Amino acid sequence: MGKLLQISNSTIKRITMYYRVLLETRDTHYIRSDEIAKIVGFNPSLVRRDLMHFSQVGVTGKGYPVNELKSKIVKMLGIEKPSNVAVIGVGNLGTALVNYRGFHHEGFKIIAAFDIDHRKINRVRNGIPIYGMDSINKIAREKNVKIAIITVPVRIVQDVVNKVVAAGIKSILNFAPAKVMVPVGVNVLNIDMTVALSRLSYMTAAQKVLF
Amino acid sequence: MGKLLQISNSTIKRITMYYRVLLETRDTHYIRSDEIAKIVGFNPSLVRRDLMHFSQVGVTGKGYPVNELKSKIVKMLGIEKPSNVAVIGVGNLGTALVNYRGFHHEGFKIIAAFDIDHRKINRVRNGIPIYGMDSINKIAREKNVKIAIITVPVRIVQDVVNKVVAAGIKSILNFAPAKVMVPVGVNVLNIDMTVALSRLSYMTAAQKVLF
Repeated sequence: MGKLLQISNSTIKRITMYYRVLLETRDTHYIRSDEIAKIVGFNPSLVRRDLMHFSQVGVTGKGYPVNELKSKIVKMLGIEKPSNVAVIGVGNLGTALVNYRGFHHEGFKIIAAFDIDHRKINRVRNGIPIYGMDSINKIAREKNVKIAIITVPVRIVQDVVNKVVAAGIKSILNFAPAKVMVPVGVNVLNIDMTVALSRLSYMTAAQKVLF
Repeated sequence: MGKLLQISNSTIKRITMYYRVLLETRDTHYIRSDEIAKIVGFNPSLVRRDLMHFSQVGVTGKGYPVNELKSKIVKMLGIEKPSNVAVIGVGNLGTALVNYRGFHHEGFKIIAAFDIDHRKINRVRNGIPIYGMDSINKIAREKNVKIAIITVPVRIVQDVVNKVVAAGIKSILNFAPAKVMVPVGVNVLNIDMTVALSRLSYMTAAQKVLF
């Protein structure tokens, strides 16, 4: 298990991408590194090097048995059982995530949502109950929530993160456009789609000057 | 205009974050750099340095007039008019994006969606028409689509990107977990939520060994 710690963040990112390819490869028994490489757009030698972490799995010439490789990766990523996920903030984006069914077969299951708006609390959306923010401590522990996806306005995000951390959740995916502070042992990743769109917009606007 | 080109990608990212703060600051006439800094979690001196790009705007002691700063940033990012956005692939995530109303008041307007599934084509979702992929060339030019958000399976993403590029779209936000190839002058940003969740999951699993 200690060996896993040597694997870099970018390797993990690539291995997760290979895993996605394997998930979409339902009909094949074997897949070769160059086939994976072609789909993800990396160099085949890089794919082979990454998959050396599962060296016992590959068969020369034939490639990797899809199911065995899949289950090794699943084990490495710690997603053998679906991780329970809570969505915090049931606004537009939160609702979209609650309605999204794509995470489940990739090891993540949204099992609860939280909001502070009394018109939303105690309702059920897409089979997912919406609770008041004041019950996150109780619900998160009862339902074994591992990951919080936060989609609240930027002004309250640090306060919400503090409550999430106090509820024992150690992994946070933050969609609010702010850096949040967490204690050691809690992990945060930030995704901001509007920032991405704005960056694209700027990059393309700036290019007009060049081209 | 040429001056803009010197601004780094990470500065643009931060300026977009300040813009988000300004959007949520509807009631104030002035905002100080330290107030912005507190919300986004950066050092106030970094915020002040970034906002020196709009140096004429600030008033000593009082801060920045919200509306003026907003419109200067809007101009810099090239989002004076809402940019027309098309969603390619109306699966779970594509549908979630089509249903999401959050982009609009930040300068991005989803005006069309595309799919290859005949059961989806020629329908309207959340006011947004869904077209067949074979008409992207015509529709994208007619409707002046500036940005494509791509949410198709990884196996076909390069093919879809080629069609998007051929339709004259120069900015692509790619949710499929693959690196795609585009000609010079086309910009791509990648977002993969499942990769983010998997990385979080791995980071937290690996930490259990440490702590």
